[in-house]
Amino acid sequence: MTVTAEHGPGWAHEPDPGRRVTAAGRMLAVLDAFGPRHRSLTLSDIARRAGLSLSTAHRLVHELVAWGALERDGEGRYSVGLRLLELSALAPRGLGLREAAHPHLEDLHRATHGNVQLGVRDGTGVVYVEAIRARVRNPVNSRVGDRWPMHATGTGLVLLAHAEPEFQEQVLSSPLERFSPMTVIDPDVLRRTLASIRQTGVAVARGQITVPDMVVAVPVLDAGGRVAAAVSVVVEATEARTRELAGVLTQASRAISRTLGPRPVTGL
Amino acid sequence: MTVTAEHGPGWAHEPDPGRRVTAAGRMLAVLDAFGPRHRSLTLSDIARRAGLSLSTAHRLVHELVAWGALERDGEGRYSVGLRLLELSALAPRGLGLREAAHPHLEDLHRATHGNVQLGVRDGTGVVYVEAIRARVRNPVNSRVGDRWPMHATGTGLVLLAHAEPEFQEQVLSSPLERFSPMTVIDPDVLRRTLASIRQTGVAVARGQITVPDMVVAVPVLDAGGRVAAAVSVVVEATEARTRELAGVLTQASRAISRTLGPRPVTGL
Repeated sequence: MTVTAEHGPGWAHEPDPGRRVTAAGRMLAVLDAFGPRHRSLTLSDIARRAGLSLSTAHRLVHELVAWGALERDGEGRYSVGLRLLELSALAPRGLGLREAAHPHLEDLHRATHGNVQLGVRDGTGVVYVEAIRARVRNPVNSRVGDRWPMHATGTGLVLLAHAEPEFQEQVLSSPLERFSPMTVIDPDVLRRTLASIRQTGVAVARGQITVPDMVVAVPVLDAGGRVAAAVSVVVEATEARTRELAGVLTQASRAISRTLGPRPVTGL
Repeated sequence: MTVTAEHGPGWAHEPDPGRRVTAAGRMLAVLDAFGPRHRSLTLSDIARRAGLSLSTAHRLVHELVAWGALERDGEGRYSVGLRLLELSALAPRGLGLREAAHPHLEDLHRATHGNVQLGVRDGTGVVYVEAIRARVRNPVNSRVGDRWPMHATGTGLVLLAHAEPEFQEQVLSSPLERFSPMTVIDPDVLRRTLASIRQTGVAVARGQITVPDMVVAVPVLDAGGRVAAAVSVVVEATEARTRELAGVLTQASRAISRTLGPRPVTGL
């Protein structure tokens, strides 16, 4: 069961007209025009979505293509280019973390046959820095680089449970989106869920984003003992053996923590 | 044997003072300040590397942090942020390709116990959109997002062999960097190598970047039959059974091609 087109990742990055006041802001608005449902855009799409004149958009797009942030296909449509992949590989909490975690996530995937995600907190959301999907089943929409709200994902609930109380309240008091009939959006219920996650060390959620999936998630600690990331496994609810999943997840999480070494992951 | 600090990925993106003439160019210069050997920079590092005044750098960095392209750690140093990972996930030749290829690359990794890379052509170089590394041995410097010159990598040689002749000559007539004593930089020898790759369908190179490694690489075709990417395996030369490796690589390549579906990968 896939996420409907109206919802899904990238929810926090619709173009923001307020940024268009500076030249640099206009360039960022061009980049913001791209999203999971807008991967390939014409020049006029970009101008419209970024709120720019066609000539300004043309000039900025030209500059971004020359730099490698965008590429132009044979039909004159633009998409995100590889220079951004190259740059994003430098993010200490991105592909570096992914790389440390990768073998353990593969083990986890093989042991559980579920979708495996590694997420970190960014702003008020969670961004997946790794996602390994089962080949056929569980076509849940989880990809590297996806951004989701915290209340609706296993990794997000874990990260929220271990965040500072002010941040928790900020998230819980903002409008909480419903992704499936089973998404919990009641702040009081969520507060109890977070307390339980802190107590048990494990988040278990059912159908929060897609029915009939069940997700089990645990925190990943950095060398300083702080929660740097969260790892989750999504399986079909009928197959979920929660306690068993929590066991292998905790093992994987400890293995990842060991590879994070003595230098704590920064920025959280 | 790792690559020395003087060489390595990212060679094509040292800051370019020529770009600083426009406001957007100055913002890209700030991003260009970051690289594999400059993952964490102070504000004055950024200003110096981007060729900007401290106040201009401060303003642009502030804007980039607000947008999520950069993040600031507790010690006031800046690094690349997760918004760029999120954006780069939209690149059709980046993480999308990676995702289609991933299970087959994992199989390849398991079958060969070597480092596995999936590379695409970008500008005059090759960018790895996936890299799976053996846990302990072969600590060759291959990571997702790494950019390498074509003449010195297995995937690059394959992509170059199947590129248009004008492009080949452009690459062969530019200065070719030596990464190890065994890197081939003689254009005539390289021309013969490219002809042989086209004939046999396989590139075999030994110690081109790191000694004592051997790399075997094959092309990945899109649904239109064009070379969209190249996949390679790096193993220790003493263990290389070239013919066997070429066989499993070709199988993996065909499996990846099938997942690329009827829509050709654009932009090449």
